[in-house]
Amino acid sequence: MPCRSPNCCKFIVKPLKAYLSEKQKLVDRELKRQLPSVSTSPATIHQAMRYSIFAGGKRLRPILCLAAAEACGGKDEEALSLAAAVECIHTYSLIHDDLPCMDDDDFRRGNPTSHKKYGEGIAVLAGDALLTIAFEIVANAKAQPRYNTATLVRELAVTSGSRKLIAGQVLDLEGEGKGSTLTLAQLKRIHLGKTAALLTTSIRFGGMSANTTAKRLEALTVFGQSLGLAFQVIDDILDVTQTSEKLGKSAGKDEAVDKATYPSLMGLERSRREARKLTKKAMDALTVFGARGQRLAEIADYLLAREY
Amino acid sequence: MPCRSPNCCKFIVKPLKAYLSEKQKLVDRELKRQLPSVSTSPATIHQAMRYSIFAGGKRLRPILCLAAAEACGGKDEEALSLAAAVECIHTYSLIHDDLPCMDDDDFRRGNPTSHKKYGEGIAVLAGDALLTIAFEIVANAKAQPRYNTATLVRELAVTSGSRKLIAGQVLDLEGEGKGSTLTLAQLKRIHLGKTAALLTTSIRFGGMSANTTAKRLEALTVFGQSLGLAFQVIDDILDVTQTSEKLGKSAGKDEAVDKATYPSLMGLERSRREARKLTKKAMDALTVFGARGQRLAEIADYLLAREY
Repeated sequence: MPCRSPNCCKFIVKPLKAYLSEKQKLVDRELKRQLPSVSTSPATIHQAMRYSIFAGGKRLRPILCLAAAEACGGKDEEALSLAAAVECIHTYSLIHDDLPCMDDDDFRRGNPTSHKKYGEGIAVLAGDALLTIAFEIVANAKAQPRYNTATLVRELAVTSGSRKLIAGQVLDLEGEGKGSTLTLAQLKRIHLGKTAALLTTSIRFGGMSANTTAKRLEALTVFGQSLGLAFQVIDDILDVTQTSEKLGKSAGKDEAVDKATYPSLMGLERSRREARKLTKKAMDALTVFGARGQRLAEIADYLLAREY
Repeated sequence: MPCRSPNCCKFIVKPLKAYLSEKQKLVDRELKRQLPSVSTSPATIHQAMRYSIFAGGKRLRPILCLAAAEACGGKDEEALSLAAAVECIHTYSLIHDDLPCMDDDDFRRGNPTSHKKYGEGIAVLAGDALLTIAFEIVANAKAQPRYNTATLVRELAVTSGSRKLIAGQVLDLEGEGKGSTLTLAQLKRIHLGKTAALLTTSIRFGGMSANTTAKRLEALTVFGQSLGLAFQVIDDILDVTQTSEKLGKSAGKDEAVDKATYPSLMGLERSRREARKLTKKAMDALTVFGARGQRLAEIADYLLAREY
């Protein structure tokens, strides 16, 4: 188990906040380098791609990728382009999710969504272009002896495809208005697809960039899936228990569109137990990394340690 | 120059029509194998993917890929998965182009378009899923000594990306209503992006699957680009000169939305000369393949030998 004592490593290890801000800058620089400039013709599409990529995201997935590389003894430089690729996939999925024919959101982080700013046609194409460039970036990334380009591309394509990320979105679309008729297994599949799949690939990419062993890659997989699911269960709980003000977004939104949530399917108390169980599973998976896994543990703690 | 005499090879070479139909079946079988079955959960998305893929396309791009492999001494089996991948990209681009926020088409080849059949949300996601699976298919394809997986993935991503295929669509969207203010260079860029880029990659993929030389790959590139542009110029001419009945689709559609075309920018006669020049350039590029290039020449002839 990595060192978690608040007084032990503070003189040798950067505080989490500084770490996150430093890595965020690294990721932003990499994304600037990888995406065509806004003056590249046709300017509109490249402006739209950059508008959504640089819209204030926390770079959670890329930073998890870098922290996983670190846990496996790897370096930022080897992981950065894979980190940028997952952020392109994440941003494409947000642009398409926000479209009027999907979740129909006008704002994201206080800014107009892509289709409000550029129109629906360009928004669809900007999403397409970010999805496409993610694969170009992975094709250009340095492969490792254990993980060649084919493995990396396959990982990203499967995670982003119709059985995972897109499956989550489809089931989510179809689940609206069905509320309590959804089974727990179906709800779990939505969360695995919409949240846990790309989170897990981000983390696995970090391990792959460090040419880690199959055993450690498996530990990263368990960590990523448990983290992703725990995060989602906690989100579901907070949507029920918190006021919109405290949440910083509309509370009770799931109930309003009659979407199934963990609390609606298994009740609040069981949902809380489930969240704690998943959090423990995520943390336990990090044991194999010893002290090097500390950053991953800290980030997980940062994401999951909310009052629920 | 490959043998083009109508009486020379007829006893040893399959007539074009039989060839096209045979290869179409091969391609269809490969696509059936590569795409998840319609019962794979979530069923809707896999039904929508197959609905558009098996909507009666002529498989022009995959067949050009197989014929290019043949021209380079390669085999169908080595080229088939790359051929399937380009068809997935082509179909995704049609689904997204047909959306109400783009060209807003309700029918394609007499059938309802994806969004008319499944709704806009699923149509966007079916396009996304086909774009994504194309890269999975390429990642799983057998690489060759001269063309590794990274090269194949990069080729497909660049061709499908914001500087080629998507650029063509953006410029096309932006060009509507601008008619004669568009320059010839801009029009050529639209056609290169929307038509010639993916056609060229299909043909190059055939060469790559046969591990062809750089010189032959360059010849395939010139062939593909000239063929794609010639095809588009002829389409533009026919849109002006033919009746809708003879064309099998609405004639004069470009003029109706004030879209620039070759005839509108350079006049009919110069457009015809341009088409003949491009056709000759395409045919000349095949010289290097000798008799093995005959199929490519026949297919080009089949596509370009229209009365214009």
